[in-house]
Amino acid sequence: MAKDHVQIFDTTLRDGEQVPGCKLNTEQKLIIAERLDLLGVDIIEAGFPVSSPGDFKSVDAIARLVKNATVCGLTRSVENDIKVAAEALKHAIRPRIHTGIGTSDSHIKFKFNSNRDAIIERAVAAVKFAKTFVQDVEFYAEDAGRTDNEYLARVCEAVIKAGATVLNIPDTTGYCLPHEYGAKIKYLKENVKGIEKAVLSCHCHNDLGLATANSIEGAINGARQIECTINGIGERAGNTSLEEVVMIMKQHPDLNLDTGVNTKLLYSTSQMVQEHMGMFVQANKAVVGSNAFAHSSGIHQDGVIKNRETYEIMDPADVGVTESAIVLTARSGRAALAYRAKNVGYELTKLELDTVYPKFLDYADTKKEVVDEDIHILMKQNQIKLS
Amino acid sequence: MAKDHVQIFDTTLRDGEQVPGCKLNTEQKLIIAERLDLLGVDIIEAGFPVSSPGDFKSVDAIARLVKNATVCGLTRSVENDIKVAAEALKHAIRPRIHTGIGTSDSHIKFKFNSNRDAIIERAVAAVKFAKTFVQDVEFYAEDAGRTDNEYLARVCEAVIKAGATVLNIPDTTGYCLPHEYGAKIKYLKENVKGIEKAVLSCHCHNDLGLATANSIEGAINGARQIECTINGIGERAGNTSLEEVVMIMKQHPDLNLDTGVNTKLLYSTSQMVQEHMGMFVQANKAVVGSNAFAHSSGIHQDGVIKNRETYEIMDPADVGVTESAIVLTARSGRAALAYRAKNVGYELTKLELDTVYPKFLDYADTKKEVVDEDIHILMKQNQIKLS
Repeated sequence: MAKDHVQIFDTTLRDGEQVPGCKLNTEQKLIIAERLDLLGVDIIEAGFPVSSPGDFKSVDAIARLVKNATVCGLTRSVENDIKVAAEALKHAIRPRIHTGIGTSDSHIKFKFNSNRDAIIERAVAAVKFAKTFVQDVEFYAEDAGRTDNEYLARVCEAVIKAGATVLNIPDTTGYCLPHEYGAKIKYLKENVKGIEKAVLSCHCHNDLGLATANSIEGAINGARQIECTINGIGERAGNTSLEEVVMIMKQHPDLNLDTGVNTKLLYSTSQMVQEHMGMFVQANKAVVGSNAFAHSSGIHQDGVIKNRETYEIMDPADVGVTESAIVLTARSGRAALAYRAKNVGYELTKLELDTVYPKFLDYADTKKEVVDEDIHILMKQNQIKLS
Repeated sequence: MAKDHVQIFDTTLRDGEQVPGCKLNTEQKLIIAERLDLLGVDIIEAGFPVSSPGDFKSVDAIARLVKNATVCGLTRSVENDIKVAAEALKHAIRPRIHTGIGTSDSHIKFKFNSNRDAIIERAVAAVKFAKTFVQDVEFYAEDAGRTDNEYLARVCEAVIKAGATVLNIPDTTGYCLPHEYGAKIKYLKENVKGIEKAVLSCHCHNDLGLATANSIEGAINGARQIECTINGIGERAGNTSLEEVVMIMKQHPDLNLDTGVNTKLLYSTSQMVQEHMGMFVQANKAVVGSNAFAHSSGIHQDGVIKNRETYEIMDPADVGVTESAIVLTARSGRAALAYRAKNVGYELTKLELDTVYPKFLDYADTKKEVVDEDIHILMKQNQIKLS
């Protein structure tokens, strides 16, 4: 049986980029957009065009560049936002406008000082207006995670009738538990009239560490698009990690779900985004952290030497990690140095690492890349012996 | 109705510490053990006493120090391991021996070159031997995540009969999906004779980003102990993050589960472990990352200013994050600098951050702590204006 395709909607350049210190210039955004297109994501959310002239310019440039993916721009349910987004997207081969409004009682009351029926009217008007520019219109029901399901179904029905092609159900505050979020998607799948005309999409935040699990439960219950970012960057604790949801679907064939992502490019894409944003992942980050495939304890090493499968569920090569993939440069962290030193026989203590790390940085400053031979030189200079 | 207590079993000093570059000396381990006891964890796994004389010494010292928590030592199903662990734990007020063996077909065949019945015999013998030293014996069925449920139930039944007080069901390779792991715990709860005499425990790894979700699904289905580490450190992509599971139970009162953890100490404990291990969390780490409570986009800030609850599900003060909690020192990362600069009015671009960060490090080297006033001086020196 053919697997169901789950679309990967990458929002690294929108939800990811709006974080303190993550700002990119247009040139950097183009480099990343080109890589995302090569990686095989289905949709690239390129920015929020009305938010600044710089963002408009970047979305316009990305729309002209991208060959395969749909290019999407974010808007509020505001006519001018939509008009500006349409303008920014006009050179895209596959343009999408992403519009929406808050639907939880908290958002309706405190953010909009409005009521449920009036919010539906604004939602419908926004979708209809967006449809005058593009065929592909995604609607987000902000704070859907805390929106009661019956009202949420009414909102969905109304915007589908207005022409929405995708329904984004965001857990904006990262509050839902996996079984709750899964049940919400199931409810919509079963109770929204016309749901077969639209794709349900998961957009989960990681405030409680559950974004990945929630997205997967959403897909198990019928969502066919997942919104995510490289390295899980984004507001506060971030968004769903693209690399995690993609590898879950790949490693769990029983789910019968797949994506178009070329997983062999995951590690290098992660590195590229870290480098451009200056937003580094921790060593124990799933799939792309420098320790993700390091077997450190004696028990584990012993098991792995006897048979890799005793402790390894993913082949590192499948995500593009090869022996030399943990590249050491002046930007490398302590964990990467410890890992590579260990690979060539030095089991560093915390104290040794404290001593050698600043020396390593000085050394690395003089070279583009620190190779195994350099590690031996460094250790010798610092009187550290092979373990 | 009184909530069910879920025991928090902290393995920062065992599973966390066995990672490259994370090695601690005994003095550092004692500082962390004392803090864990103050934090209110129920069990501290102090080490693997037979693995090295240093580890033995540390477990012995922790056993003498800790006042409230149970102190636990790891062993294989090997008599000498158990004897050495019992010796190391003999001064503990509440000692526990944690013994076990691999139960998946992969482990039985490739690691032990054995068969299912022989493995049960070894498991029972180990538990019985441990019981000759201590009353509290936890058994781990390594790779339980990939062990078939029927055989796993047989193993559990046999070790309960032998006197095991806790059954640890590890997803050693981090492969399980939340609904699968939950179903496994439910199966054991319903099918193991004598299960009411033992506590089921979750020990999940984060290879696919699902450790937290799996542990919570385990608790929902009847587990009453969660094994976790501060900052989720541990082998490869790490273990379940203590701070995440604790805050999920706190923020979801409907689960009717609670822990004895004083959440106000979570942030400072996270900082302490990062500092001692040199293993830093990423800015977008849930609960304890430097951006976890940062609202960066204009839309979000606007919502938060109108009413915090529109985007915030946790009060930062509940986890010990106050305005001044993101302390800037020469060890701080770029995200922390960007965050604090933003707090006092500078929205740094990537380029500005690239320029100012090395200057900040030089500046910070001359001071114990960089305060708001220093940030203004730094920005002025680098011609960066208030946004």
